[in-house]
Amino acid sequence: MSLLVVGSVAIDTIESPFGSAPEVLGGSATHFALAASLFAPVRLVGVVGEDFPGSYLELLRQRGVCLEGLQVVPGRSFRWTGRYQGTMAQAETLSVELNVFGDFEPALPPAYRTSRFVFLANGSPHVQRKVLEQVEGDPFCLLDTMNLWIEIERRALLQVLERVDALVINDEEIRELTQRANLIAAARAVLELGPRTVVVKKGEHGALLVHQDRIFAAPAFPVERVLDPTGAGDTFAGGFMGTLARLGRRRPSLQDLKQAVCAGVVCASFNVEEFGPGRVLGLEPHEVLERYRAYLAMLQVDGEPVLEQVLLAAGSEGSRAGAAAG
Amino acid sequence: MSLLVVGSVAIDTIESPFGSAPEVLGGSATHFALAASLFAPVRLVGVVGEDFPGSYLELLRQRGVCLEGLQVVPGRSFRWTGRYQGTMAQAETLSVELNVFGDFEPALPPAYRTSRFVFLANGSPHVQRKVLEQVEGDPFCLLDTMNLWIEIERRALLQVLERVDALVINDEEIRELTQRANLIAAARAVLELGPRTVVVKKGEHGALLVHQDRIFAAPAFPVERVLDPTGAGDTFAGGFMGTLARLGRRRPSLQDLKQAVCAGVVCASFNVEEFGPGRVLGLEPHEVLERYRAYLAMLQVDGEPVLEQVLLAAGSEGSRAGAAAG
Repeated sequence: MSLLVVGSVAIDTIESPFGSAPEVLGGSATHFALAASLFAPVRLVGVVGEDFPGSYLELLRQRGVCLEGLQVVPGRSFRWTGRYQGTMAQAETLSVELNVFGDFEPALPPAYRTSRFVFLANGSPHVQRKVLEQVEGDPFCLLDTMNLWIEIERRALLQVLERVDALVINDEEIRELTQRANLIAAARAVLELGPRTVVVKKGEHGALLVHQDRIFAAPAFPVERVLDPTGAGDTFAGGFMGTLARLGRRRPSLQDLKQAVCAGVVCASFNVEEFGPGRVLGLEPHEVLERYRAYLAMLQVDGEPVLEQVLLAAGSEGSRAGAAAG
Repeated sequence: MSLLVVGSVAIDTIESPFGSAPEVLGGSATHFALAASLFAPVRLVGVVGEDFPGSYLELLRQRGVCLEGLQVVPGRSFRWTGRYQGTMAQAETLSVELNVFGDFEPALPPAYRTSRFVFLANGSPHVQRKVLEQVEGDPFCLLDTMNLWIEIERRALLQVLERVDALVINDEEIRELTQRANLIAAARAVLELGPRTVVVKKGEHGALLVHQDRIFAAPAFPVERVLDPTGAGDTFAGGFMGTLARLGRRRPSLQDLKQAVCAGVVCASFNVEEFGPGRVLGLEPHEVLERYRAYLAMLQVDGEPVLEQVLLAAGSEGSRAGAAAG
């Protein structure tokens, strides 16, 4: 089914312990669209300046991403420069130039308004609200946000949150949003704010899905050589929403959501293997499927009967203390 | 099969955002033994002072833990006082009194020397070496350590590491030991130092098993109310080694190790629910089995054929870019 993303399309300059990549294709909507388009047709709404390389737009088009909603306006494109060090868990932002993205007014082409699945990528809650005002027919909406908006636009953010189906957010951000240290408690607190589903992104530690009263903790797919995590969260969201859009249910089941999380984890694991979107750009569906199968095989633990024997035997022969210490 | 643990038996005083627990039963060997004894008979070697409460030793005996190797000597017992704040990921040590544990000379009763499974709990590598010198007949040995020994006894630690089958260590420690930021790269580096198996403990993020060329990333069992994580790592090791000892294979298979990791994850999830060893002391085998089943059910992702359809359909209809950006 039709999948709409609204967010940034940018030019990134990235340094990591493994090298650097100047002026590569970046932005939340970009990373999302490149992954999601492996699963479903994607429509992109965003804005770039006249300086934006046509070759970069062509890369999106080659993946079947519809750019009818991408505004090209006078001025410079959104630019971000960041650096990773140590465990590379967090980017250090060296510079941000919002440029044309600072005045971004989302305008959905008429055909986009009936999209059945919508990703509101990280951005001002006011922009996100304006998108919700333009969509029709109650689509499934996933929202992303960041610390900045939690801090300076909390009220507007909470209003948008009330109107979406799901929130995808990283561990630090959800702690800040809810003032809860425990991630499950934090996710449950978000369920009180509107969404029925929360996905906490934990970088190298995977993702945590809380859907109504059910929980799915998904480890990351193990990647030994992480060159650049930029866009991994949006790539995750792309695999997640791409899967949901393809499954096409307005109210995804727990099993739908678990599959979507696994697809997101697998897509994100490719993203980090090269700088910028390099790896995902060249990604073939069969590669995703192979890694998805390897991931599920990793999660598969055989031999429950053995542990059952073990525990029942231990239960019958060992003695247990009824009292607690302390 | 027979399972030996050598390590600390202590008195802990703990503060967390959820309360405090003065002078509770603690120590690495204690937490290990309480969990492992759910699976297999445990023999404990350690030392306490004459001040150590007899009622605490009785709690271990009631779980079938053999204390023949526990020395009771003049002086005060090992005491640790710690505090958890914020995400509770790390204890802040407020005071440590090694007391009688500072001069600990492990002496294995003759019957213990032929133990088939041995856990060398966190402690001086010299003490760990002395244990290895006393065991006979090539048991399966698991080693734990900490930053202190990596920093001040690196050479001795590396010598012990050469002689064990497996290392269990937390994420920070393995990064410090190997000077690798990526945990998989770090674990692989440890495989060059002797062990065939490495388990990285990641607290709320679960555990990572690297066994020869295979990897198993296990999320933590989701616990919303973490009161006190003290001993969670040793409780994990207890479930892990208890399972391996019960399975009884000198060279555990990948599936054995995966089951053992899951058992460790489940045991650790109980440990954090109350202060000190309170929850594990009262734990019944059927509770472990129920949570183990719930954990495996959580990890189970159905519907691979759906993603297969999705991806193959996407592959046939979508177009892909061959070129990489940047």
